Amino acid sequence: MSTEPEVFVAGIGVLPFGKHVERSVTSLAIEAGLLALRDAGVAPREIGMGFFANVLASRLFGDSTLGQNVFASLGMNRIPVVNVENACTSGSSAFHLACMAIRSGECDLALAIGAEKMCLPQMGLLSSGNTDPDTLLGLVTPASFALRARRHMQEFGTTAQQMAMVAVKNRKHAALNPQAEFREPITLEQVLNSPLIADPLTRLQSCPIADGAAAVLLCSAKVAQRLSCRIGVRTSILVSGSYDNPQDLARWETDYRCARQAYEKAGIGAVDLDLVECHDAFTIAEIMHYEALGLCSPGEGGRFIESGAAALGGATPVNVSGGLLSRGHPVAATGLAQIAEVTLQLREQAGARQVHGAKLGLAHCMGGDRAADTKSATIVILAT
Amino acid sequence: MSTEPEVFVAGIGVLPFGKHVERSVTSLAIEAGLLALRDAGVAPREIGMGFFANVLASRLFGDSTLGQNVFASLGMNRIPVVNVENACTSGSSAFHLACMAIRSGECDLALAIGAEKMCLPQMGLLSSGNTDPDTLLGLVTPASFALRARRHMQEFGTTAQQMAMVAVKNRKHAALNPQAEFREPITLEQVLNSPLIADPLTRLQSCPIADGAAAVLLCSAKVAQRLSCRIGVRTSILVSGSYDNPQDLARWETDYRCARQAYEKAGIGAVDLDLVECHDAFTIAEIMHYEALGLCSPGEGGRFIESGAAALGGATPVNVSGGLLSRGHPVAATGLAQIAEVTLQLREQAGARQVHGAKLGLAHCMGGDRAADTKSATIVILAT
Repeated sequence: MSTEPEVFVAGIGVLPFGKHVERSVTSLAIEAGLLALRDAGVAPREIGMGFFANVLASRLFGDSTLGQNVFASLGMNRIPVVNVENACTSGSSAFHLACMAIRSGECDLALAIGAEKMCLPQMGLLSSGNTDPDTLLGLVTPASFALRARRHMQEFGTTAQQMAMVAVKNRKHAALNPQAEFREPITLEQVLNSPLIADPLTRLQSCPIADGAAAVLLCSAKVAQRLSCRIGVRTSILVSGSYDNPQDLARWETDYRCARQAYEKAGIGAVDLDLVECHDAFTIAEIMHYEALGLCSPGEGGRFIESGAAALGGATPVNVSGGLLSRGHPVAATGLAQIAEVTLQLREQAGARQVHGAKLGLAHCMGGDRAADTKSATIVILAT
Repeated sequence: MSTEPEVFVAGIGVLPFGKHVERSVTSLAIEAGLLALRDAGVAPREIGMGFFANVLASRLFGDSTLGQNVFASLGMNRIPVVNVENACTSGSSAFHLACMAIRSGECDLALAIGAEKMCLPQMGLLSSGNTDPDTLLGLVTPASFALRARRHMQEFGTTAQQMAMVAVKNRKHAALNPQAEFREPITLEQVLNSPLIADPLTRLQSCPIADGAAAVLLCSAKVAQRLSCRIGVRTSILVSGSYDNPQDLARWETDYRCARQAYEKAGIGAVDLDLVECHDAFTIAEIMHYEALGLCSPGEGGRFIESGAAALGGATPVNVSGGLLSRGHPVAATGLAQIAEVTLQLREQAGARQVHGAKLGLAHCMGGDRAADTKSATIVILAT
C-alpha cells in the first residue's frame, strides 16, 4: 500500500459501553450499524460487503452466524457477509477485511460491525480456549498479565504506583466521555487498594466486561470524494503472534513487529502521532504498549506514564476515550470503538476530550494473550 | 472481475471424512494445511495470509481463535490469520476471503483451511442458533428441508423415489472415492426404508456428521506461472440470503441469485459445466440446486435425477465426490473439500471417479437454512 489512502472512513457508530441487560447482541449490533450509516449519510443499498465481529455469542448462547441476521435487519440482506472471530482483535480484523474488500475492488463501501454481550451470570473467566495447556494449568488471562507485570517491575524498576497511574489517567479521560462504562474519578490509593485479582494487578487495574457495539463504515477514494470524507486509512496491519524468545515476558515481540510494519507502511514515526488508542486490558499492558509503539524506549514505560506524556494535554495522549480500563471492553466491539474514537478526534468532534489539532492517530489491539504467545495484533493509522 | 483469472489454485489437501476419535480439530486442520503446502510445493514462509474456517469448536469445546494455533503449528506464526464462521459456507467463505486477499495485493499466496470435529456425544442437532424464533419453535434443519420436500412434491410432482435416487447416486460415486465417509452401495429400497427423520426425509437422505478437514492454497497469476498452476478461479461469489417471497418453499431465491451472479461474472452458462459439486445436505436440496444452478428448468429436478444426467457419465455429473450425503459433512471443511474435488477433476487426478476431459467445474454451498431465509450461499467456478 502506498501512503496515499485508498480507503477512507465514511461513518462511525458506537453505543455506550456498559450493561444493556434487556438487549440482545444482535440488537446492539444493528443500532451501531445504523448509527454508522446515518453518520455517513449513506443508504443500506449502497453497501457492498459486511463483516460482523463477535467472540462470545456461540460459547454463551449457542448462537452462530449472527452477522447475516444483523445485516438483514439493517436492510442489507443480499450482500456478502462474513462472521469474524479473532479474540480481542476481532473488531479490528473485521476492519482489516473491510479495507481488503475495498482495495480488491469487491466493493466501494464495506461495513464492519463488532458487538458483544458479556454482562451475564454465565460469563466466566475469558481464556484462549480449553485446549490450550497453559489455560488448563490455570494461566488464565489475568494471571498471564500479572506474570508480565512482575517481570517488568523486576527488570526495569517499574513500580506498582506507576501501573496504578494508568488506571487513574484513563478514568480521568473516561470522565470526559459520555459513552464510557465507568466515569467516576479514582485515586491512586483506590486503585492500589482495590481487591487483588492476580498479584500485583488489582481489580481497578483490570478492564471490566461490558455489553456494547461499534461500527465503522469504509469507502473507496472515489466514494470518499462524493461524501467529502477526509479521514483516510494510512495503514491497517494484522499480524499473528510468535516470539523469538517466549521467556522474555517483559516484551511482546508481536507488538513491536506490528508497530514496525505499521510505521513503515504509513511512512511515519511514533513522534508524528497526535493520539493513540491502545489495548490497555490491564495497566501493565498499556505500559508495555508505550514501549512497543515507540512512544518511549523499551523499559521506560513506567517513567513515561509518570511524566504525564500519555495524559490529555501531554505529548502523546493515550486512550483519551477511557481505554479498555474505563470505557469498558465488550471484546469484539473494542477494536472498532478505538478506530471510531480516533476518527472523532481527527474530525475535531470529541468534545471535552478533544486532542486539539489532531491530524494523525493510531489504534492498536492485541488478542489472545498467553504466557508463551499472543495470537494476534492489529494497528490502524488514520490521518486527516 | 474479468474472466481472465487473477487467482489460481496452487495446492489442495483433504483428509478422509469420518470418525477421527483421537484427534483434535486443530490436528486435523494442520494435516490438511500441510497436504496443501506439499501439493503446491510451497514452503510455509511463502504464505502471506491465512484463513481458518470452523463452526462448532467454540460451542462444543469453548475453543475459539484456533486459526492462529493451526497456522503457527504449520510454521506460519507471524502472518495475518482470521477465523471465519459462516455456517455451511464457512470453508467457501474462507476461500472467498483468500481470493480477496490476493486480488487486493495483500499477498501472493493465501491459505484457507476448514476443519470440524462433530463425532462427539455432546453434538446435538445443528440449528441456526438459539435466538432464531423458528428454531425455538422446533424448526431445526431437517424439519426445514422436509417442508421444502413436501412443497416440491406437491407443486412439481417430485416423488419420494426421485429424491431417494439422489442418495443412491451419491453413494455410488462415494464408492469410487477412498476419502468418503460411507462407501457401501445402497439401494432405493434401503434409502426409502431407513428410519424417518422428518417426513418425507429418511436417514439415508440426510447428510451424516463427520470429523474432517480440507485446505486450498491460492496464488496470484505471477506465482501461478512460477508454480505452473493451470487451475484458475473464474469467479467466487458470496451472497447473503433473503427471499422476495419467503413462502415460496420450493425455490431458494438466494441460490438462483448466486448462480445468476456467478455465471454472469464467469461469462459462462450451466451448459458449459463439466461437473458440479453442490450442497446436498438432504436429497431434496440437491434436486432444488439442479434447478437453481440451471442444470434443468425450475420444477424439473426430480426428472433430472431420474434421467441419469447427474450421474458419473451423464451430461453434468453432480457430486462425484459422494457429496455431503456420502462423503460426509464436517461443516467448515465441506466448502473447501468441494473446491479440492473440482481441482482434482480439472487436473485429471480423480482416479476411478474422473470426469473425463473436465475443463470447467462449479462448487456450490449454502449455509444456515431456515424456513424463511438462507443465511448465505457461495459459488466458485474453476477452469483449466
